[in-house]
Amino acid sequence: MVRWQPNAQERLGEAALRLYASRGFEATTVAEIADSVGLTERTFFRHFADKREVIFSGQERFQQVFVNGIASASADATPLAAVIAAVTAASEFFSDERLTHSRLRQTVIAAHPELHERELLKMATLSTALTAALVEHGIPESAATLAANYGVMAFQLSFERWLLAGDTRSFADIARDVFAELGALTAS
Amino acid sequence: MVRWQPNAQERLGEAALRLYASRGFEATTVAEIADSVGLTERTFFRHFADKREVIFSGQERFQQVFVNGIASASADATPLAAVIAAVTAASEFFSDERLTHSRLRQTVIAAHPELHERELLKMATLSTALTAALVEHGIPESAATLAANYGVMAFQLSFERWLLAGDTRSFADIARDVFAELGALTAS
Repeated sequence: MVRWQPNAQERLGEAALRLYASRGFEATTVAEIADSVGLTERTFFRHFADKREVIFSGQERFQQVFVNGIASASADATPLAAVIAAVTAASEFFSDERLTHSRLRQTVIAAHPELHERELLKMATLSTALTAALVEHGIPESAATLAANYGVMAFQLSFERWLLAGDTRSFADIARDVFAELGALTAS
Repeated sequence: MVRWQPNAQERLGEAALRLYASRGFEATTVAEIADSVGLTERTFFRHFADKREVIFSGQERFQQVFVNGIASASADATPLAAVIAAVTAASEFFSDERLTHSRLRQTVIAAHPELHERELLKMATLSTALTAALVEHGIPESAATLAANYGVMAFQLSFERWLLAGDTRSFADIARDVFAELGALTAS
């Protein structure tokens, strides 16, 4: 009987995170990840370049959603309105179904400084991409740089809150609050 | 004749940065760094744990200056005023004399992703320390987290501007402008 293997990438990704969380990132081998879901190393490497890539795959698509959010803002949008549009667009990634996965991923990252560093570099790369998108949208470079960094910071703060146990609001609602609170902070 | 070796740490640090910039971080050995200023590897390791430490030493002292800035803010300071006090206090590090060193250091970091990642982790650690200092100062945790991240972002943006060629203003002046521009951005 030939077994059909649907969603191999997703299953490998979830299995990897569970093993990284329970045994540690370094101690887990690709063979163990693949074995744990009845797949082969060969299949793993068809979906991921290496062990770290499991955690950081999808960066381009993720970044593109933010960039599209800026492109969709009205032509006369303020820099702030444009970055709010970007973060709001990114909310689509953070559905309730994704919460368990994201929490597990965060646990693994928090426990491994080299993964935390990589995650931070991903955010810096996102800032650079948003700056370019804002400039493309007609915003002067200096204001674009500030707005992009501000937007990424608001995103990170929203993401941290969304991961907290006990907060059951949607990502979009949390982001709205974070922007409001940051606005109040800077107006004081 | 016994040669006196003043400022060994500073000379080793400058020599290391020059070599990292010209030959690359990986290709430079500790022996070469020490040789280039007539010192020994043994002396190098008396001052630095490893090659990377040359670039990131002094984090505790650096962080403490920010924390002291918050402690020195008035008891009824807003979270924003407290983080402005922190960044202003940190200006002491960024004297005109330090500019050449800081630019060289930035060139090295920008050319090496693993060093850039480490620098970003340093900033994340600073955010955590500032959050704790703000809570200590009587600010609720949620507001403290936002304010600390906002302050570190403003610091990073100010630091980048300070490193730019052609901008001859002091770090404190630049930081004041960045806070003003961010305030205008978020008020829009």
